[in-house]
Order: sequence, then C-alpha cells, then structure tokens
Amino acid sequence: MASKTPTMTEVLRTRQIIDAAKICFKNHGFHGTSMAILADFADLSVGQIYRYFKSKEALIEAIVKEIVYHRIEVLEARGFNVEEVAQMLAERDMGKFDSEFAIDQILMLEVTAEASRNLNISRIFKDADRESCNRLNISLRKKYPHFTPQEIAARVELFTVLASGSDTRFLVEKKFSTEELRKIYLNIFNSVFTEKHSEHPQ
Amino acid sequence: MASKTPTMTEVLRTRQIIDAAKICFKNHGFHGTSMAILADFADLSVGQIYRYFKSKEALIEAIVKEIVYHRIEVLEARGFNVEEVAQMLAERDMGKFDSEFAIDQILMLEVTAEASRNLNISRIFKDADRESCNRLNISLRKKYPHFTPQEIAARVELFTVLASGSDTRFLVEKKFSTEELRKIYLNIFNSVFTEKHSEHPQ
Repeated sequence: MASKTPTMTEVLRTRQIIDAAKICFKNHGFHGTSMAILADFADLSVGQIYRYFKSKEALIEAIVKEIVYHRIEVLEARGFNVEEVAQMLAERDMGKFDSEFAIDQILMLEVTAEASRNLNISRIFKDADRESCNRLNISLRKKYPHFTPQEIAARVELFTVLASGSDTRFLVEKKFSTEELRKIYLNIFNSVFTEKHSEHPQ
Repeated sequence: MASKTPTMTEVLRTRQIIDAAKICFKNHGFHGTSMAILADFADLSVGQIYRYFKSKEALIEAIVKEIVYHRIEVLEARGFNVEEVAQMLAERDMGKFDSEFAIDQILMLEVTAEASRNLNISRIFKDADRESCNRLNISLRKKYPHFTPQEIAARVELFTVLASGSDTRFLVEKKFSTEELRKIYLNIFNSVFTEKHSEHPQ
C-alpha cells in the first residue's frame, strides 16, 4: 500500500481487493486462492493487486487486523454491555451489528488452522490477538477499576475463549435453548465481572 | 474398512494409515495431502490405502470421530471432575492425559474451517458434534440429576464452547496467570453445575 496519505482511488481500490480476497479465501481457502484467481475475481490485473499488497500474506494480515479490530471496536462502542454480550454469545453471533460476520468467522477459523503450519500466518495471528487482548484489557480496566491487572488479564482470556469457542460452533445445529444459555452467560458475567471471588469450598 | 471382524493385520494397518494421515493433514492441510503423498508417507501403496478408506473424506471422518470420542471418553473416565476440567481449561490443555492432543487440536481447527466450504466435511463435523454432545449430556444428567433437560443442554453447550475456544488459543502466548484463570473456571463450574440460578438484578 502507498506510504503517503492514500488518494480516494487508492482507498477504494484497497477496499475492492480486500472484499474480493475475503470471498475468494472463504470459497477456496488460502491455498486454493492464487493471486491470479483473486485478480480475476476482483476484475483487476495481478500487477494492480501487487501494487497494493506485496503478497498473499500481506493481504491476509490486512484482513485479520480488520476483522479482529472491528470486533473490539463494536464491543468498545457499546461499552462492553454484559447483557448484550450474553445475548450475542448465546446466539453464537458476536457479529450482531455486522453483516460481514459469518464470512469473518470462517476466515478466522482458516487463519487459526493455517497458523499451525505457517510461521508468517502464526505471527499475524499472534500480533492481532495481542493487540485485541490489549485493547479489551484497557476497556475492562476502565470499566472495572477494582480488579487487579492479573484479574483483568484472566477475564480478558475468559471472554476471548467464549467468543472464539462460539465462533467454532456456528456451523453445528443448536441443541439448546438460547434463552437458557443466555441466562447462564449473564450469571457468569455478573459474577465474574462484579465480585471478587474466593474459591468455593468443595 | 472390512465389514467382517477385522484381523489383527487389518487393525494394525488401519492404525498405521490413520496415524500417517494425521501427520500429513497437520503438515500440509487436507487440500495439500493427496492419497499419493499419504501412501508415500505411510510406506504403503495407494491401492492398500483405498482398501481401508475409500476416500480422503472417509479418512477424515475416521480421524474426527476418533478425536472427538476420545476426548469425551477421557472426561467420562474421570467423572467430569470440575477441579480437573478447570485446571485443564486454564492450561489450554484439554488433552492433559493424551500425548496426541496438540495434533488433534490442529486437525479439529482444520476440519472446522473446511466444514464451511465442503458439505461432506460439514456433515462429518456435525455428526461428531451431535454424538459428542449426546454423550456429554448423558454424563451430566447422571451426575446432576436435579437439572432439567433444557438446563443440561445449555451446560453441555457452555462446556463445549469453553473447550473449543481454548483449542483455538493454544498457539497464542498466554497473557494471563493460569492460576487466576483456573479460579475463575472453578467458580463458574461450581456455580453453574451446583446451583439453580435466577437472574441477578442489574
């Protein structure tokens, strides 16, 4: 991508390439998508794509950052409302406010699997996760100032596990009542985010 | 696979093929693993492999079932001990008692991603999930007879989300104290699995 302030054409072209790449990656996977297939789908030349993204991995990095940061921004904008989060998790739909969510879920699964065998993708995945956890950490610290940094960090992880876990399950049938699961999540959040716990005796 | 009782040779051969396939799929992905690559790695002929598995998908199905059922069996054998489960989740290691666990995690991520674009893999994934949830449902009903079927089903989903979510995170660095997260999980399990909740007032 150009290092100076991008022109409107460059911004639109970048958008066009990213949108096309997301659909190609979703349909064919990373391995099944060559720059030629992508160029064809985006109605551009391979040269035009390389002008904006120097490799398929640079494109994957841009997509992963966009997905991960967008999710955090949605949570931040809505003030990490536990009622809403419980509802979204129970519906397996952390993208309630985002029409692109289903494709984003699939792409993040693809990235996670690919990270296990490709060091560059692994670095992209880890960087995005670190940034996302940092931002969630800052939000939660502001919202729950009575917790220690260690308590906040564990809660960031809990939330991330719940969100990622729900993502992996959007394909399988629901074998539970959404309302029943929502109540459980809400109780968990009300308990984990408002009280200081000591361990229950067995 | 032979439909009559398999001979010892057949059992060992099946094992040999599955073990080789798991390593090939982990290293090259499903798409990057042809039957020829697999045969070469397993030191067998392509014909020998087809005698046992009529397609790559039949092989994936055998692997997925083995992974999913094995996990449930470990939990069943240990009586769904909440202390142990909290510890394993906090360590992101639901395979504490299983040396094959890291490779299984990667393969399940691969299957989940692939299920979004391949109807046969999607069916395999859904079938294994249904069977796994059924078995967990039966275990939890036995252990917690005071819950209604609906309450049990929601708890099965909660547990599955936590386990799958932890799986997706085994590659990223730990940014939290395992002990702090273990305490949170233990409190969640003690609360979700022993009490009947009403919703907290806001």
